[in-house]
Amino acid sequence: MLNNRAHTVAEHLVELRRAAPLVQCITNSVVTNVTANVLLALGASAAMADVPGEAGVFAPIASGLLVNLGTPHAEQRVAMLEAACAATAAGTPWVLDPVAIGLLPVRTALAEELLWLRPTVIRGNPSEILALAGAGAGGRGVDSTDSAEAALPAARGLARDFGSIVAVSGPVDVVTDGATDIRVSNGTELLTRVTGGGCALGAVIAAFASLGDDRLATTVAACAVYTIAAEQAAAVSRGPGSFSVAFLDALATVGADDVRTLAAIA
Amino acid sequence: MLNNRAHTVAEHLVELRRAAPLVQCITNSVVTNVTANVLLALGASAAMADVPGEAGVFAPIASGLLVNLGTPHAEQRVAMLEAACAATAAGTPWVLDPVAIGLLPVRTALAEELLWLRPTVIRGNPSEILALAGAGAGGRGVDSTDSAEAALPAARGLARDFGSIVAVSGPVDVVTDGATDIRVSNGTELLTRVTGGGCALGAVIAAFASLGDDRLATTVAACAVYTIAAEQAAAVSRGPGSFSVAFLDALATVGADDVRTLAAIA
Amino acid sequence: MLNNRAHTVAEHLVELRRAAPLVQCITNSVVTNVTANVLLALGASAAMADVPGEAGVFAPIASGLLVNLGTPHAEQRVAMLEAACAATAAGTPWVLDPVAIGLLPVRTALAEELLWLRPTVIRGNPSEILALAGAGAGGRGVDSTDSAEAALPAARGLARDFGSIVAVSGPVDVVTDGATDIRVSNGTELLTRVTGGGCALGAVIAAFASLGDDRLATTVAACAVYTIAAEQAAAVSRGPGSFSVAFLDALATVGADDVRTLAAIA
Repeated sequence: MLNNRAHTVAEHLVELRRAAPLVQCITNSVVTNVTANVLLALGASAAMADVPGEAGVFAPIASGLLVNLGTPHAEQRVAMLEAACAATAAGTPWVLDPVAIGLLPVRTALAEELLWLRPTVIRGNPSEILALAGAGAGGRGVDSTDSAEAALPAARGLARDFGSIVAVSGPVDVVTDGATDIRVSNGTELLTRVTGGGCALGAVIAAFASLGDDRLATTVAACAVYTIAAEQAAAVSRGPGSFSVAFLDALATVGADDVRTLAAIA
Repeated sequence: MLNNRAHTVAEHLVELRRAAPLVQCITNSVVTNVTANVLLALGASAAMADVPGEAGVFAPIASGLLVNLGTPHAEQRVAMLEAACAATAAGTPWVLDPVAIGLLPVRTALAEELLWLRPTVIRGNPSEILALAGAGAGGRGVDSTDSAEAALPAARGLARDFGSIVAVSGPVDVVTDGATDIRVSNGTELLTRVTGGGCALGAVIAAFASLGDDRLATTVAACAVYTIAAEQAAAVSRGPGSFSVAFLDALATVGADDVRTLAAIA
Repeated sequence: MLNNRAHTVAEHLVELRRAAPLVQCITNSVVTNVTANVLLALGASAAMADVPGEAGVFAPIASGLLVNLGTPHAEQRVAMLEAACAATAAGTPWVLDPVAIGLLPVRTALAEELLWLRPTVIRGNPSEILALAGAGAGGRGVDSTDSAEAALPAARGLARDFGSIVAVSGPVDVVTDGATDIRVSNGTELLTRVTGGGCALGAVIAAFASLGDDRLATTVAACAVYTIAAEQAAAVSRGPGSFSVAFLDALATVGADDVRTLAAIA
């Protein structure tokens, strides 16, 4: 089973490089640059079409869409709803990243509205997933205060209620469709010491979601490729600065054989 | 001829370091940081004065102005028109980068409005230049789907109609004033694997445009210095992450002798 | 005296790593990423809660708040006032960085409004401090055109009038409470060749301000730790690109012993 899953991830990675999906990112002001660089390094590309009147025009053309609530200014909120509606109508897969909801009222209301548009994938830390499911009070920003396993019942419930794949990030990432849970144990603590460690993963999940209809498998592939490249980068880094640089280099070079050898999926 | 042009580029580089021009950048959210870092590394400086009520105050004081349409939010659109009008009135050279026009309606309308303010220089990829000239349908984001040579007639037409220098980016950059076309063949494919590869060049073109009235020559100089530094960086890079770092280092150290030796201008 | 001050800085650094303060940053679009990365590298964390309706909700929960006027869009201006009021009411220390005021009217009016909310700390370059005190005409962007010593009388006056600590950045940083002036002579010219060199320091000052009520001491500690790490990074850098990388690595590893050995405080 483990070997089969690693093999599927490797196939998805090869396919991603061939297809070079274009991901529309409506994301927060802190991570726009690193998100685009992560996609480009991996072999995908990025377009930050986040203006009302354009976001909905672009979503049907994009391979995938990321909606990240990190800094939800008024224009972006309109663009997010516009893009999510257009993506849903056109069959473009889209990812909701409900950054720091629970505590902060504007984004919490927006996340609920977006949830009813049935995101293809929801990615968050445990606190955010608990808050989205109405079971928690939210964390302090992007850092989680609950464990991924503690949020798994909430994640399964969201997956069943909205037909979404839910990915809960943590030292072990858990991905669920409500029935099957898959754990990805790759990664490095350094991903939490640089901005965008989680936010850029949302964009990568959107890129992989464009590769096929088994979004449980594509989401696992995204998490595995991303965290394997992070492990490779951590091995040659002296701190968070050199890690960020090595991570982009590793995303450009990580290959199917690395995935087959290193993937820790169960 | 080639040697003369390389010599002129070298002289412009020396003059840039001496003058340390301050470039006002109204640019997209993905590349603000890298754009400012590119200017600082090269020996210029950057000010992102992009708020209505300030953009037009700053433009007459700036050495040059960049208007990049990558993420044209409502306030920025007002600031762009305000700054472009003030720059034109004050004689501040300004660069229009019509990112991803053609497909996306808000920026396409804005680009046409800005075009009538007669930009000093227009920089774009072939799809964008074709779209600006009304001859194409636009690309998918910042990546071009047409070749630079295919866009050259459109570039020449824009140059003649609006009195602008037009720089078409690609593996070979073509710069035209409508009568004379100059090709810069330096560069590296890695510039397309990192964000800002094209967008930051627009800011560098604005910096060089402040050095003299021969904007065909200053634009060629900007393209040549930028892509020569990129070649130097690529030679010591292991991927897109280390390339970005090495590129800033190279922009800070690239000298007149490097330009005379390496420039591939025809 | 010098040894005592260096010892206090070292103690603050150890305490910062233990407390891991969460800093709310309402800052400009150029430096959001580097500001968050600097805080994360140092052992603090960042939340860019800068939307009206959320900024004031978050400020009482944050350990400290940065208000940086670099790109003050309309929504951000509302969020800044909201957050500063809430921070003051809740006792959250906050830092005002009046980027490029004097010349630019929107931010100048906003800075005056914020000043009357009595920032815990004001950080700026000499031109900005002079402009804030009504004694100067402002600089050209983030670069100073006056020396720190020339701005010291204005800094002392601001400190006395508004009960703020004032930090004037330059080759030698001067920190004053209106009665006592402390100079930090660490640093490197490379901090002026990368974006965020000054802006991210404002966030670090906010992080240290959360550690205790002696804000003269915490501000000196922030300036010293930041510039000592910059010295360490400069020693292993080949230019501004590699400096930025090494600086984040150094912020993660700089320790109490480094501070005791290297601090140049008088």
